[in-house]
Amino acid sequence: MADPIRELSDLLARLPGVGRRTALRLAFHLLGAPEEYARELGQAIARIRDRVRPCSVCRNLTEQDPCAVCGNPRRDRSIICVVAGVPDLWAIEETGSYRGLYHVLHGLLAPLDGVGPEDLHLDALRARVQADGTAEVIVATRPSVEGEATAFVVRDILKDLPVRVSRIASGVPHGGELEYADRVTLGFALDGRRNMP
Amino acid sequence: MADPIRELSDLLARLPGVGRRTALRLAFHLLGAPEEYARELGQAIARIRDRVRPCSVCRNLTEQDPCAVCGNPRRDRSIICVVAGVPDLWAIEETGSYRGLYHVLHGLLAPLDGVGPEDLHLDALRARVQADGTAEVIVATRPSVEGEATAFVVRDILKDLPVRVSRIASGVPHGGELEYADRVTLGFALDGRRNMP
Repeated sequence: MADPIRELSDLLARLPGVGRRTALRLAFHLLGAPEEYARELGQAIARIRDRVRPCSVCRNLTEQDPCAVCGNPRRDRSIICVVAGVPDLWAIEETGSYRGLYHVLHGLLAPLDGVGPEDLHLDALRARVQADGTAEVIVATRPSVEGEATAFVVRDILKDLPVRVSRIASGVPHGGELEYADRVTLGFALDGRRNMP
Repeated sequence: MADPIRELSDLLARLPGVGRRTALRLAFHLLGAPEEYARELGQAIARIRDRVRPCSVCRNLTEQDPCAVCGNPRRDRSIICVVAGVPDLWAIEETGSYRGLYHVLHGLLAPLDGVGPEDLHLDALRARVQADGTAEVIVATRPSVEGEATAFVVRDILKDLPVRVSRIASGVPHGGELEYADRVTLGFALDGRRNMP
């Protein structure tokens, strides 16, 4: 057996969603792929941790500090959207409908896993809101026990500041079937109903 | 947007079976993974092409030449099993029931894709059989148009040598349902029937 192939496939099998067979298939694919591609991918993986760091303003992961969002003079600096992680920030950016700033928590409140409010950089958020006179903080954590708990903690830490704290809407997703929506989602959809124009 | 993350995820998305969303998920996973793991995986990928080369005897991919199979004095040197690729060799090794040698073609006959007999290193196979006085060559290419065509070419190139050329059995797989087997497989199963003891 060729050990380097086995070695590579064992490392690949530690990726989420990559089983033993898939890892082997990927290893052989990389063996047959253009040498330049394998080298580029390998270097991108090996260096990713060194190349990005948290933005000193919003903790978005970035190569330059401040990040592209915080450094963009055309963003609306009166609104901060609080997200659990960078993938959520990217998802919101992709909607193209948000022009404000962000604050990345890099986690959600999870007391059982030892993640308390002090781990979520909430002091930094409070300091930003205070210093910039932010008008609105939108809490865009996901609608789950942890996401809701985090939203309440964010609201509490900003309670005495003159800032509107809002929460993204939760309900039946676009294109979703009512009959397949779970009860909690349907409950959120009913609670969050709005008058029709 | 953090460019190194996008860059990494674009490279990951070029792997087979990895879509845009999975690539992004993997990129963020690697960002959060232990630095040592990301470095190890990255180096394993970048170097895989340099670390293995074809065995000079059987063309199995290997770090040492000859490969572990060819270099093992306990293997039966009178039988050569012809396979299309190294994954097939590994699959046969895992059965634990084959103790002979191999010959890896690194492909199957595919005239429409420009793969002719001369691309499959068949001359090297013929030379081996001739030099070693091999007793049997088992053609273990898959039961498909290309696999069958390749099997016939292997048989033809060895025709004038005193060697038995055999073909692996094809039929309904172990545990498979007859009603779900395709017609060709069922046809192979009937053609390949054997007397019961």
